[in-house]
Amino acid sequence: MTKSASSKSALQEKEGISAPEIVNIASAAQLKKLRSRPISAETLTKGIVSGAIPALSQAITLIESTNPNHLEKANQVITACLPYSNKSVRIGITGVPGVGKSTFIEAFGKYLTGMGKKVAVLAVDPSSTISHGSILGDKTRMEELVKDPNAYIRPSASGETLGGVARKTRETIILCEAAGFDTIIIETVGVGQSETAVHSMVDFFLLLKIAGAGDELQGIKRGIMEMADAIVINKADGDNIKKAQYAKTEFNRALHLFPAKKSGWTPTVTTCSSITHEGITTVWDTISAFLELTAANHYFEEKRAGQNQYWLMETINEQLKQHFYTDTNIMASLESYKKAVQNNEISPFAAASVLLEKYFK
Amino acid sequence: MTKSASSKSALQEKEGISAPEIVNIASAAQLKKLRSRPISAETLTKGIVSGAIPALSQAITLIESTNPNHLEKANQVITACLPYSNKSVRIGITGVPGVGKSTFIEAFGKYLTGMGKKVAVLAVDPSSTISHGSILGDKTRMEELVKDPNAYIRPSASGETLGGVARKTRETIILCEAAGFDTIIIETVGVGQSETAVHSMVDFFLLLKIAGAGDELQGIKRGIMEMADAIVINKADGDNIKKAQYAKTEFNRALHLFPAKKSGWTPTVTTCSSITHEGITTVWDTISAFLELTAANHYFEEKRAGQNQYWLMETINEQLKQHFYTDTNIMASLESYKKAVQNNEISPFAAASVLLEKYFK
Repeated sequence: MTKSASSKSALQEKEGISAPEIVNIASAAQLKKLRSRPISAETLTKGIVSGAIPALSQAITLIESTNPNHLEKANQVITACLPYSNKSVRIGITGVPGVGKSTFIEAFGKYLTGMGKKVAVLAVDPSSTISHGSILGDKTRMEELVKDPNAYIRPSASGETLGGVARKTRETIILCEAAGFDTIIIETVGVGQSETAVHSMVDFFLLLKIAGAGDELQGIKRGIMEMADAIVINKADGDNIKKAQYAKTEFNRALHLFPAKKSGWTPTVTTCSSITHEGITTVWDTISAFLELTAANHYFEEKRAGQNQYWLMETINEQLKQHFYTDTNIMASLESYKKAVQNNEISPFAAASVLLEKYFK
Repeated sequence: MTKSASSKSALQEKEGISAPEIVNIASAAQLKKLRSRPISAETLTKGIVSGAIPALSQAITLIESTNPNHLEKANQVITACLPYSNKSVRIGITGVPGVGKSTFIEAFGKYLTGMGKKVAVLAVDPSSTISHGSILGDKTRMEELVKDPNAYIRPSASGETLGGVARKTRETIILCEAAGFDTIIIETVGVGQSETAVHSMVDFFLLLKIAGAGDELQGIKRGIMEMADAIVINKADGDNIKKAQYAKTEFNRALHLFPAKKSGWTPTVTTCSSITHEGITTVWDTISAFLELTAANHYFEEKRAGQNQYWLMETINEQLKQHFYTDTNIMASLESYKKAVQNNEISPFAAASVLLEKYFK
């Protein structure tokens, strides 16, 4: 399923299945026309709250739109959905390409729906603007989960900035929760600052790793390990089991370097196999224990309130910058001041003063 | 010497020495009057470039002033000094209270002036706004260095924000370099984001530690170790030598966790004693080796150019925020929107939209 198709259609994809001949062409056209007519924010909200997937998908498409009218309607839907949201656990999952994120989410997601949970899988992947959906774009990698009626998979929104992509995903979380999804998984890939963005919108942050050549810690990205509430070493099957055990010891030692977490939670390191499903239960048990602890010490609600504040400020700061840097006056002179600063002809602070004066005049 | 005295007087302090009776009272008054008359930016610049300490101190006082006229004059002086600046090594030194920063800088600074270098010691300490100069405020802790004609010590500027304090220090660096100081030491204390600010204005970043109870790495702040070009374990004397050696091993192992640096430099861990002066030479040798390497691979100049760009952007962003948050419209409604966001009555993004609309109207 391609990205553009996903934006236009509110239906769940069934790629490779062409319309059977029995379909009434006329009624299909009528349906299409109906669907292209604007639906009110109220109708959409009702649909979402009743758990209707087409309404959910359509509202998310509004969120992802660049049309100002769509944005306004999206804001109305989100505000109306807010009272129904917030009752879920939001789990962030990160890991570099190759650690088996898709197969892990497939196995983990199936385990959760098997427990009666409703699972939404979203993604934050700013690189998808260029690659048109590198993660989750190819849903065939989650063959089982995609067919599960209690799972909803939505590829990463696209956008020019990480801020934009993150905003869209965060708003999508609200809608998914209002639609009755109680477990929200947000996948991201270890690129740039996307982990920080995801970390600031989830309750629990899981770092997926695989056992390597023995030197597991070399090259690990700054801060990622510190953000993790759990490190799960994937692909612990067959010949890999021994290596995975060794990696577990290494990571446990490394976690020891970091100061205690505000949550009162001690990060765990476990192994798992998305093939044999060994260790998948442990992942959920870990998250449950975390939820229990942070509900008791009120960290859970405090963190969510803090995240709301963070996104308010973050959005304001982002918009202020965007307004400044797209100002015609600024665009006309910024580069020359940058060069002057680079060549030590003017101090960065003096240059900033001049530019700000131009802007505020 | 108190903070306020240091701002008013252009003279180096000689606390505890009262004016000898032989001083001509009339001529002293005349001198005082002369000094209180505004001096032109040109005269100040000439004084600085000739290496006159009173002119340097006076210009720094202008930088630290909140009077807009002073700021304008300060900008003129800085711009005029820029061609004479940039020829130095800028060394950042951080460490939590108790590691002996002052005694280390005293020993290290004396070593450098002994080699014929001219050393300026500055500080970035946002907490000094409240405490009126907690670090470097008490210059008596650098008894020897303060009397050294080839050393110049200036306590941290004060300011409401770290951004403000950092700006002032960064501009002070330019003036000190124009005044002929070839080695700039910038001290900071392990509080908040001040290390990041200092890191973004120096060539070489030194983390000062002491050997502890054996578990050296516990509680070390995120990112600090990764920023360090050298870790120096201070107070390696007497009974401490063995512990310091052990700490050295521990830190060396921990540094192994981090990815290779862009500079091509491999961070070092050494021990030193500010009392016996053992290891002080090694610190300078380390810095010299770093300078040689980064001059050859052009990292030195690239980093400085990058830092200039960073400060340009940083200043703009800081000012944009300040302008927004001090807007009367925003100040009147921000708190109620913050509360609404906290209580899930409005999404952070919708709240940001409303506030930004108010602001730009």
